[in-house]
Amino acid sequence: MFSFKVLSNDKEARTGELVTPHGSIKTPSFVAVGTRATVKALSSKDIHASGCRVIIANSYHLHLQPGGDIIEHMGGLHSFMGWEGPLITDSGGFQIFSLGAAKEHRVGKVAPIFPEDQDLGRHFHSKKGKSLVRVDDNGVEFVSYLDGSRHRFSPEQVIRLEQKLGADIVLVLDECTSPLHDYHYTNAAMERTNRWAVRAREEFGKISHNKQALMGIVQGGAYRDLREKSAIFISNLDFDGYAIGGSLGRSKEEMYRVLEWTIPILPPEKPRHLLGIGEVQDIFEVVKRGIDLVDCVIPNKFAQTGTFFSKNKERFRIHIQNSRFKNDPRPVEEGCGCHTCRHYSRAYLRHLFMAGEPLAMHLAAVHNFNFMESLMGQIRTAIKEKTLAELTRKWNSRGGSNRK
Amino acid sequence: MFSFKVLSNDKEARTGELVTPHGSIKTPSFVAVGTRATVKALSSKDIHASGCRVIIANSYHLHLQPGGDIIEHMGGLHSFMGWEGPLITDSGGFQIFSLGAAKEHRVGKVAPIFPEDQDLGRHFHSKKGKSLVRVDDNGVEFVSYLDGSRHRFSPEQVIRLEQKLGADIVLVLDECTSPLHDYHYTNAAMERTNRWAVRAREEFGKISHNKQALMGIVQGGAYRDLREKSAIFISNLDFDGYAIGGSLGRSKEEMYRVLEWTIPILPPEKPRHLLGIGEVQDIFEVVKRGIDLVDCVIPNKFAQTGTFFSKNKERFRIHIQNSRFKNDPRPVEEGCGCHTCRHYSRAYLRHLFMAGEPLAMHLAAVHNFNFMESLMGQIRTAIKEKTLAELTRKWNSRGGSNRK
Repeated sequence: MFSFKVLSNDKEARTGELVTPHGSIKTPSFVAVGTRATVKALSSKDIHASGCRVIIANSYHLHLQPGGDIIEHMGGLHSFMGWEGPLITDSGGFQIFSLGAAKEHRVGKVAPIFPEDQDLGRHFHSKKGKSLVRVDDNGVEFVSYLDGSRHRFSPEQVIRLEQKLGADIVLVLDECTSPLHDYHYTNAAMERTNRWAVRAREEFGKISHNKQALMGIVQGGAYRDLREKSAIFISNLDFDGYAIGGSLGRSKEEMYRVLEWTIPILPPEKPRHLLGIGEVQDIFEVVKRGIDLVDCVIPNKFAQTGTFFSKNKERFRIHIQNSRFKNDPRPVEEGCGCHTCRHYSRAYLRHLFMAGEPLAMHLAAVHNFNFMESLMGQIRTAIKEKTLAELTRKWNSRGGSNRK
Repeated sequence: MFSFKVLSNDKEARTGELVTPHGSIKTPSFVAVGTRATVKALSSKDIHASGCRVIIANSYHLHLQPGGDIIEHMGGLHSFMGWEGPLITDSGGFQIFSLGAAKEHRVGKVAPIFPEDQDLGRHFHSKKGKSLVRVDDNGVEFVSYLDGSRHRFSPEQVIRLEQKLGADIVLVLDECTSPLHDYHYTNAAMERTNRWAVRAREEFGKISHNKQALMGIVQGGAYRDLREKSAIFISNLDFDGYAIGGSLGRSKEEMYRVLEWTIPILPPEKPRHLLGIGEVQDIFEVVKRGIDLVDCVIPNKFAQTGTFFSKNKERFRIHIQNSRFKNDPRPVEEGCGCHTCRHYSRAYLRHLFMAGEPLAMHLAAVHNFNFMESLMGQIRTAIKEKTLAELTRKWNSRGGSNRK
């Protein structure tokens, strides 16, 4: 019920088709983030209308609220959230990082995260704090951010939880390190993640019913030998796909290098998912290096703060609250076919954000997801036509050139 | 471009058709409240899909944000908010009350308002406070709740503002008194409202272009002779329709009496709008007495707090956060055709509210507006078939019997 086929190449970039029991995904694809079984301010119908065909939810969050048993009782995540298309569940590895090292180190996946980088949409913590997790070889113990209750995740428990949730593609439990972790710790965490991967693979084998596919996760921080070691180890476990997670260095250039070390080692016939990255400029860079799936909260986070994707603007975005839009009758993006751009002006959208109206975020999310899908469609076409470099140049000359 | 025709009667209740330049409204009708040019968490498309055909926005709020000039520049309110159907604008009279007497007296339109009445959805203020308005014969001076700036509304200014906004039906400026105002003050305010009505009528006559209809407002509190005096005076000004505003007494029974005193005096060939009332039980009672239009924030307010309309439940509502819904796979309302009930379970809706997800309010608003439209449709059919009393009994035996 699962298959992945590479359909065309443009150097390292590739298009493909990932078939799941709930439909197929054209790759490269942007995966909408629906952490708590909902993509912020959008119904499943809205997501589908944007062209998006796959959502990633979060096992950790759903374990805490409403709980795996309830979702299983409701017929699984697809039925629970009214989404008939492909679903992925992340394991909670990133949340271990978020509640642990990210809090202590005050960093994101690509460090350092300063306050002005908030709009990058990456998870970050504004104050250094005490870790709320304890990682040991057997798994991770953490405190619920909701009620302070204590929980434990082992690699096996996460697989069983993900089976209850019933997503098409599930990720193994990993330990996501921080860019500020040293070589020694990053190595130890990577080796632990490898041992967990073996255990998760085994548990999955016991309960598999061919309804779910399992993805392994490559770790190793920004250290070349660790990434290579991890990629070799994880590749040998014969997963249905491979995710690249964890710390991606201290700059975008380091992140690109991590991909250049890792991807050539991964089996070319399996899909590759870069976890948690998705700025417009990044998407060009990671697809170029052979990534098939990316997920990122950026369209959601931007929508919360009145930031709309825009092709011809600096850093591909406009901030609708800017007073220059107060009587601007144009749509956010001329020629955009989304519901928001077809029906509402910049002036109206600005008014909604200024007034704090709930419709504001919804209309922004509609636009941002449509924009992202349009971008991914252009990228797929360009790869097919072997013109990705040209498309990248065209976009960069529009919105990327003046970026910080 | 305006007409109103009574099509059928069931005792005092009636069905009719109100034609406006932006389409016609079947009466009795529930008017969706879109105070700041948006109905909370719903797009114009969602409102239309619910069956709702008319929205009331608020001149006072739109004057403060984004301002009449901007909306005029954007082609008027219809174009600004992407709503092609009939629109009404309220004048700001209720806001004068809200910022003034309601604050000083700590009351709503039907006093007294105690904390447990919050879910009635009526505007109320939890603390007695200082009035932020000053009413004199020439109009009202008030302080913006947004930035503390001072503003003045005269009857003429409000008409000119409403012309800029361009709604199909506009209301004159009135002074809405409190149930705690004495006879003397209520009389003085009513007479002032009458003088303002003359001035508004005159101003409207100067600028009218037959694109807008003007509604007068009957005041007079819960005093029979004042209501009668006001109804006679306002009726004689030949408005296109008549609204009943202001204090409606200290109980629902008093409110019904106010209608019984007032309605027989109003010209039967003109539409009658009861401002700001719309609980399910109330709708039966006011329609029975001859009301054609009601507006109320209840569907919106309920949606914010996880309260869903439900036919067979006590007080016609369920609170979805109740833990008994945590693994309830049923829709909110069996047989309801709304998007929410067709696609989502009570368990999922509860999860969204518990998690504070923005989709929660949207899905609740979709249901509540669909419910309201279904109710109004049943009421119109019952009036045509002269079975309104029977329908009322049927509903009351379901959800009304145990009501507080």
